[in-house]
Amino acid sequence: MAKEICIGIDIGGTKIAIGLVDKKGKVIDEVVFPTHPTKEYEIVKNDLISHIKSILKKKKHSVSGIGVGIAGQIDTENGNVIFAPNLFWNDVPLQKDLQKAFKDLSIVLVNDVRAATIGEWLFGAGKKSDNFACLFIGTGIGGGIVSHGELLTGVSNTAGEFGHMPINFNGRQCTCGAHGCLESYAGGWAIAKRAKDLIEEDKKFGHLIIKLADGKIENITAKHVVEAFFEGDPLAKLIMDEVTEALILGVTAIVHAFNPERLIMAGGVILGLPDLIEWVEEGVKARGLKAATSHLKILPALLKENAGIIGAAALACAK
Amino acid sequence: MAKEICIGIDIGGTKIAIGLVDKKGKVIDEVVFPTHPTKEYEIVKNDLISHIKSILKKKKHSVSGIGVGIAGQIDTENGNVIFAPNLFWNDVPLQKDLQKAFKDLSIVLVNDVRAATIGEWLFGAGKKSDNFACLFIGTGIGGGIVSHGELLTGVSNTAGEFGHMPINFNGRQCTCGAHGCLESYAGGWAIAKRAKDLIEEDKKFGHLIIKLADGKIENITAKHVVEAFFEGDPLAKLIMDEVTEALILGVTAIVHAFNPERLIMAGGVILGLPDLIEWVEEGVKARGLKAATSHLKILPALLKENAGIIGAAALACAK
Repeated sequence: MAKEICIGIDIGGTKIAIGLVDKKGKVIDEVVFPTHPTKEYEIVKNDLISHIKSILKKKKHSVSGIGVGIAGQIDTENGNVIFAPNLFWNDVPLQKDLQKAFKDLSIVLVNDVRAATIGEWLFGAGKKSDNFACLFIGTGIGGGIVSHGELLTGVSNTAGEFGHMPINFNGRQCTCGAHGCLESYAGGWAIAKRAKDLIEEDKKFGHLIIKLADGKIENITAKHVVEAFFEGDPLAKLIMDEVTEALILGVTAIVHAFNPERLIMAGGVILGLPDLIEWVEEGVKARGLKAATSHLKILPALLKENAGIIGAAALACAK
Repeated sequence: MAKEICIGIDIGGTKIAIGLVDKKGKVIDEVVFPTHPTKEYEIVKNDLISHIKSILKKKKHSVSGIGVGIAGQIDTENGNVIFAPNLFWNDVPLQKDLQKAFKDLSIVLVNDVRAATIGEWLFGAGKKSDNFACLFIGTGIGGGIVSHGELLTGVSNTAGEFGHMPINFNGRQCTCGAHGCLESYAGGWAIAKRAKDLIEEDKKFGHLIIKLADGKIENITAKHVVEAFFEGDPLAKLIMDEVTEALILGVTAIVHAFNPERLIMAGGVILGLPDLIEWVEEGVKARGLKAATSHLKILPALLKENAGIIGAAALACAK
């Protein structure tokens, strides 16, 4: 018997979303609450368990599994979270702890980007496609790939780390330690840093960006840069042109590597400036090999911020 | 019953190799002959058929299939060669013509890089691996990927076009029309072009390279640059340092995209300077995410120039 309803969870550094998801990928009920400021594992885990219990209490449906998406590496053998940088977690036994609290439910842990890729595959912009790649451009950049109808994981579960594909010789410093990674040009943190650096360099520019950041350079985020772009700020225009060019190079690399029929763009940067999708498609089709791009469509994600909980729930239901 | 012996063929712009290959991937007999200078399809095809007939005549074994690897795009529906730039062939019915000439044998056409990847997978450096990528660096650059035990083709049969992954903003002009492709830094043609350009720019440099090219700048090939490198020529050193850096960026991109356990390097440039493999491995491990590189080995291909005929024969035998 196919399982009907599962819980999907998306654990992030600032907030946690828990959704009750039906087999059609519809979110029936959802709670979102802030991640505890200390991010301490025991506290966050206890918060999580009590929120799950509340959802289960008021359920009219019979829930059969819990899928948890998390921004980090998962040890698929024992269900531990090996490393979750936004939460400062190292090797914590989340699957075991949840299993102990919810003995009758199947528990599945998955990387958040993988979960979102599965969500888009089953119910979003990847529906019915056997060959697509997802590129998630938020603070950082991650990705997921379905090739020949299979989600690729690679040998150590890190396939799709598109943020750290190099796109420039001697390029900008990335948070990973290397230079010239795609993320160091187009990730949200990199957009904010570029604005700060350029303004520090020459204070004649970027007045509008600083104004949007309440007058403080150190407050600037990617969101302020995108807002200033819409208001015609030349510095913001220059930065978003660089972001566009970087994404054209990164997507061209992905397309020549995998030859997907769809390239799905998602994440906060894309939600802020959806025109990026069209600009990137134009650029990739202009520079890529015709044989590799003639079947290609570049599309926005459909499930928006719910892709993660929907995908995680679907994984739990499939278990 | 498993087929025992098949013919594998590798059709290139300058020469054609035909091999009798057993089921262990051993080449029992082989003929190599020059591609007809006009490269005209009818002539080359007739040459090919008569050479195959000679091999079949002297065979002691019963041959059951013919696999043909060709540097070009194959239409998998009708077996036509859609485009083979080195031969100037456009949409020629090679599979049908061979089938007509050899009615009792199964005929399979495959891209030459794909054939070589299959050869390395079954009998070479990819043996027993479910997750590896091959990077072929000859005049141009191509690749093949096996992920989760499956050869990836993509939606229009062009997965693995690693030569056209961008590795530099505003980079060098590539033969494909774009700028900054991996091939435009590390392909054999690009190595030769870089030497010519630098020498034209300042004739103080590169005397040894010119000498090796019989005194003529226009004669310079990648082989001369590599030979000069071994003799300590500073210009050749500079060029091969650039090639190494470009390959580090390209391989890093492949490794972050697919997370393979092996990355196999093959082709004339690698055969000329096998140290590249160690230099690239060092560079990729230094700059890549640990999670993506900790299981990675970078290895030389084992089958050398025979990978193509062995892989093509194996495909024919499997049909």
